[in-house]
This record gives sequence, C-alpha cells and structure tokens, in this order.
Amino acid sequence: MSVTAAQGFTAAGIAAGIKENGKADLALVVNNGPRRAAAGVFTSNRVKAAPVLWSEQVLKGGLVSAVVLNSGGANACTGPKGFQDTHATAERVAEVLQVNAAEVAVASTGLIGVTLPMDRLLPGVDKAAAELSAHGGEKAALAIKTTDSVHKTAVVEGAGWTVGGMAKGAGMLAPGLATMLVVLTTDAEVEAPALDAALREATRTTFDRVDSDGCMSTNDTVLLLASGASEVAPEEGEFAEAVRAVCADLARQLIGDAEGASKDIRVDVVGAASETDAVEVGRSIARNNLLKCALHGEDPNWGRVLSAIGTTSAAFEPDRLNVAINGVWVCRNGSVGEDREGVDMRYREVVITADLAAGESAATIWTNDLTADYVHENSAYSS
Amino acid sequence: MSVTAAQGFTAAGIAAGIKENGKADLALVVNNGPRRAAAGVFTSNRVKAAPVLWSEQVLKGGLVSAVVLNSGGANACTGPKGFQDTHATAERVAEVLQVNAAEVAVASTGLIGVTLPMDRLLPGVDKAAAELSAHGGEKAALAIKTTDSVHKTAVVEGAGWTVGGMAKGAGMLAPGLATMLVVLTTDAEVEAPALDAALREATRTTFDRVDSDGCMSTNDTVLLLASGASEVAPEEGEFAEAVRAVCADLARQLIGDAEGASKDIRVDVVGAASETDAVEVGRSIARNNLLKCALHGEDPNWGRVLSAIGTTSAAFEPDRLNVAINGVWVCRNGSVGEDREGVDMRYREVVITADLAAGESAATIWTNDLTADYVHENSAYSS
Repeated sequence: MSVTAAQGFTAAGIAAGIKENGKADLALVVNNGPRRAAAGVFTSNRVKAAPVLWSEQVLKGGLVSAVVLNSGGANACTGPKGFQDTHATAERVAEVLQVNAAEVAVASTGLIGVTLPMDRLLPGVDKAAAELSAHGGEKAALAIKTTDSVHKTAVVEGAGWTVGGMAKGAGMLAPGLATMLVVLTTDAEVEAPALDAALREATRTTFDRVDSDGCMSTNDTVLLLASGASEVAPEEGEFAEAVRAVCADLARQLIGDAEGASKDIRVDVVGAASETDAVEVGRSIARNNLLKCALHGEDPNWGRVLSAIGTTSAAFEPDRLNVAINGVWVCRNGSVGEDREGVDMRYREVVITADLAAGESAATIWTNDLTADYVHENSAYSS
Repeated sequence: MSVTAAQGFTAAGIAAGIKENGKADLALVVNNGPRRAAAGVFTSNRVKAAPVLWSEQVLKGGLVSAVVLNSGGANACTGPKGFQDTHATAERVAEVLQVNAAEVAVASTGLIGVTLPMDRLLPGVDKAAAELSAHGGEKAALAIKTTDSVHKTAVVEGAGWTVGGMAKGAGMLAPGLATMLVVLTTDAEVEAPALDAALREATRTTFDRVDSDGCMSTNDTVLLLASGASEVAPEEGEFAEAVRAVCADLARQLIGDAEGASKDIRVDVVGAASETDAVEVGRSIARNNLLKCALHGEDPNWGRVLSAIGTTSAAFEPDRLNVAINGVWVCRNGSVGEDREGVDMRYREVVITADLAAGESAATIWTNDLTADYVHENSAYSS
C-alpha cells in the first residue's frame, strides 16, 4: 500500500532522533525506475520553508529519484542555515543512493523557526537507506506524522498500473494547499508534463478545497513520482482521474483527522454564477469561526451562514439565498425556511448546501468545526 | 455620561420582554435639538438586517430625531415581515414622540433569523418614552447589551461642547465595522456633511480595525447625532479628533470585552509600502486561528506570524521581515532573532509588531486570542 503500492518504488520510515520522544521522524521514498518522471505542487504562502525552495528547483527538472521527508521540524524561517541544511540532506541522500542530488526532493514538517538537528538527521538518512523495502510504504507514512492521530494512505488501481500515496496533515490545513506533505507514486508510463497537468488539476479540486482552520502552511508539498515499471501508458483522462481519486481520498482523510475536530463539514455551494464565486463563498462559510462553533454545538445556525455569504463579492441577491443543513432547507429566499428542529446534527459529517440562485456553477469545500480541543492542542503545541 | 453627556439629549433603557430573561432590552435616544443633524455608518455585509436597510434610508436625509435600539433579536434574515416590523417600530416612536418617522433610526442586535415579538416591543416603546431623562444614558447603554459583560460608554469634552457615546458588542467583531451598535451624541453645532466626514474617518481607523473573530455582522450601526444645544461651532479638525477619540475609546472597550477572550492583542504593522498593505497584513495576523491559540497559551509563536504575513499580497521580502512580541524582536530578517524566552506574556495585553521593511506606512489592528471559552460561548448561544 501507500507509496510502495506501485511497482518500482521502495520506501522506509525510521526514528532518527529529530523528535524528542523517539518516534519515527524520517522517511525515504525511492524511485527505482526504469523512469523517474515527476511533478510537484507547493504552498502558495510567500514565506516558504527551505525544503520547499529547494524542491521547487528540483521539480523544474521534471526528474526525481528520491524524496526524503522529516517530521519534528519544518525548517521554515531558518535563514541561510536552513537552506544549507536542506541542501546537505539532499546531498547525503544522493551519496548513499548513488543518485544526483539535483533529483532529490526534500520535505519537512513540524515547528517553524527552529533549525534541524543535522547531527541526528544525516545519520538517519543512512539508516533509512539501509531499510528501504518494497513493503516500506506504511512505515514511511508513519514517519511523517506530526499531530496526526493516524497515518493516511490511498491506492487506486488502473488497468495494469497503480497510483498510490501517503499524506500527513492535521493542523494548518488551508487553501493554496493544506498543511501537509503528500507523496504519490505510480508505475504508469507518464511523462513529466502529463504528470504535472494531472497533479495540478487534481490538487485544485481536492487539497486546495480542504480548509480546516484557514491557516496556510509554509511547507505544503505534493509530489507525484512515476517509475514506468508497469510498462503501461494509460489513457490521459483515465490516469488523471486516478490521481484525482487518490488526492480526494487523502484530502478526506486529512479533514477526518483535523486537530481537535468533532465534525467534518462539507460545504456545497450551488447555483453560483461561476466556479470562482462558488469557491469564494464556500471558503467564507468554511472560515466563519462563529458558525464552526455553532456546528460544534450541533446548532444548525443558518444565520451565520448567510452572514458569511454576505461578506463575499460573489453574484447573489440576499433575498434569493437558500441554505440547507443536512438536507433541511432552514433558509429560503434569505429568510426563515423549514423548521430548524428538523435538522439531525448527531453525526460527525455535516453537509451545508448554500444555493446562491445566481447560476449553474458549484464547488465543494471541506472544513471542520471549532472546538475547545483545537484551542487546547494549538495553545500548547510549541510550549 | 454616555449619550446624555452632551446637552439636548434624553435617553431611556427598559425591559420590554423581548429577552426571555427579563433583562433590559429596549433603548431610546432622543435629540431635543435645537438641531438634529446626523450621520451614520453601517455594516458592509451584503446581507443586511431590516433595521440597517431602514436606517440607511433615514440617514440619507441627514436628520435624526430619535434612535430606538433593541437587544434580544437582530431582525436579520427575516424577509418582508422583518422590514415591516422595523417600519412599525419607527412609526410607534414617531407617534409617541410627535416626530417624523423618516427621522427615526432603528437598530437591533441578537440572534439572526428570528422575528421580533412586536406585541412586546411596541408597548416597550411607550414605556421607554415615558422614562426619557437627561440622565438616562447609562440605562440606555445597559439595555443594548447582548453577550456583553459590561456596558460601554465614553465621553470627550471640547471647549464648551461634548461628544459622548455608548456601544454594545462582544462577538462577531470584525471589519467593515465590528458587530456592534454605537450611538454617539454631541451638542456641538455641526452640519450633517461635517458629521458624516468626521464619523467616516473615525470609524475607518477605530471600529473598522477591531477584528476580534473575523466575523462580520449583518447589523452593525454607528450613528452620530448633533443637537447644537451648546451653541458652539467647534473647529472642524478639533471636532473630528473628539469623535475619533470617543470611537477609539469604545473600540478598545469592545476588544476588552470580547467573548471568551483572555488576551487583547494589538497588531502594529510598520514599515509597510502603503496603509492598505499594513491593514491587509494586520488583518491576516489578527485572523490566524493558530496564532490566536498560541497567544492564549502565552506562547510567543512568531512562526505563525510569518506564516500569516506570507498569505498576503503586501509588498515585502520574506528574508527582510522582522517581528517583535511585547518588544522582543524574536524574528529578524525572516529568521530566528532574540531569545523567545525573554518575552513576558503574563499580561492581558499583547503587542505584536510586524516590520515589513518595505516602506514608511503603518496601521494597527486589535484582536483577541482564541479560547475554549469562546468556543463554549458560541456553541451554546442559540440553543
């Protein structure tokens, strides 16, 4: 499963001692070919971690032989020293695997503003390389966890080829990619430009529409590596759909494991004049702290949905807005609709449908409720 | 004090029975002249409550004889019935005070999506009118409270004239006005256009820069009424400064009483290329839930400040950013600065200084921390 479900890949996950608690914190994913085409999508945050700056350059070449990922430190806001550390990590991987350092992507996650313990990380690279295995995907997925309660993997099978992947992420989940590291692998024969197109389209409607807490990370990285080991070249649309499906699966898992959350909230915006409008409205609803608190309290407070819609620039008339919560149209034509007592709020998943009555476009944004546990987890994180 | 500090005004605050708990819920403020010039600023939310739609029209005339305010219900998202209720309220005030209904402003606050109990509200207008007094400002301020723990009033004395005011607001405090109702009064001789200019400039840098929870209300209303009773026409700049000072005082009180907050956070953005940039960055920092949780935990987590700055379109170079928390420059040139252990976080007020090193402009945004109490208060509000 995970990144080793596709042929041609080995992986490992080990404890290098970067985390004080001795848990696994270093993962290595290696593409053994015959091909090593790759694509990547990174955070749109303008404050980018050193590994993001490095990996963006690596991906410009369209070739990745290996990815090294660490938890226990984001290596963000660490200045020139941080970039040197990322570079040294890639060089060590290149040396031990006998590949080109310019084809080694690096990803990091953890606290911002702290430099990595390189005296532990570099020996960890050697240790991980020694444990590389075609069954190592699970361990790799475990080693990139931070506040994640579970590791996340997904696999989709094509006709003779496979797309698999792993993800980490539990907080700082917001658009322009959620805070997360994702590595996808495939044994399909696909060139870098087609990988790039499939990955960008997939992330646009999956990871980019996960907005758990409105906070965008400095480290978000999604990589897609193709080994070509299946010797099958799938039809382009079929391959793109498989990549999208794996991304959607992992994105849903991220929301399901968001820090302190007790509800997974799907915001379906329909009747929008454009997809852009639908996304803007969905994000505004997903980021409304008062609504997120109300949903935590199992209160179908549709007034807060309208209040959130009203802050956007989307096309709509206030007296034509309709809102359903879990299928009950509690707001019709901008005013009181069906009885809110009829809304069943007992389950973890909540569906908010916002009908702008302004067109035919739609979009879905996933978010979570806001809980005392979220506050607790994030007020104690670095102390 | 409050709205009756200036000559020419009477006010009252009574319990009409709109609130189930029997607390005061209806306030009346009357301008007895000789003049009755007025200006108003309203929410920029496109979903506007009925009283906002009504009062916007009233204020276009530049004349206000009386303001009637109720807590216990926002009369927002209540359709044509809600607008009729607002109209009927203004008519009742006009009738009992023998003034023109087109000069009666109405403001409401409370839960969205519920119609007002007019059978209680209208008799309440009569009762309030019977209790009007030149010492009624305090009672009026008490009657507009919702989740406010204290009532808010402020007064500034000019040379022979006075500006005073009252405010309510504790949640849904965000820009384009915080969620609040504010009535300011003055006995200065000032015409409506000058009142409007002074009020707009004052709200722009005070109430509009309070961003407690990022949630914008449907009901925000700020009114300024001038009686001319002092027979003094102040110099324009002096008057504008007095209005600004009263607004700043009330805005600071709103932040100090925000729902569930344990910290008042002043975000000073300096070195910005423009005031617009400074405000955008300030808001982004003020709305970062992860940072707000960290500050609640007295954790000077500057990485989250940088992460928030990075999501803006303001002019800056990541490796030139500097951040101080309570005077300690914990981030210099986008990387680790002075020891974060030196930051004293024990006090309620926290000052974050973000230096963009990109120009000479600055702006200050006020916000609060994010606490379990905020979650609790807002998950149980309407149930």
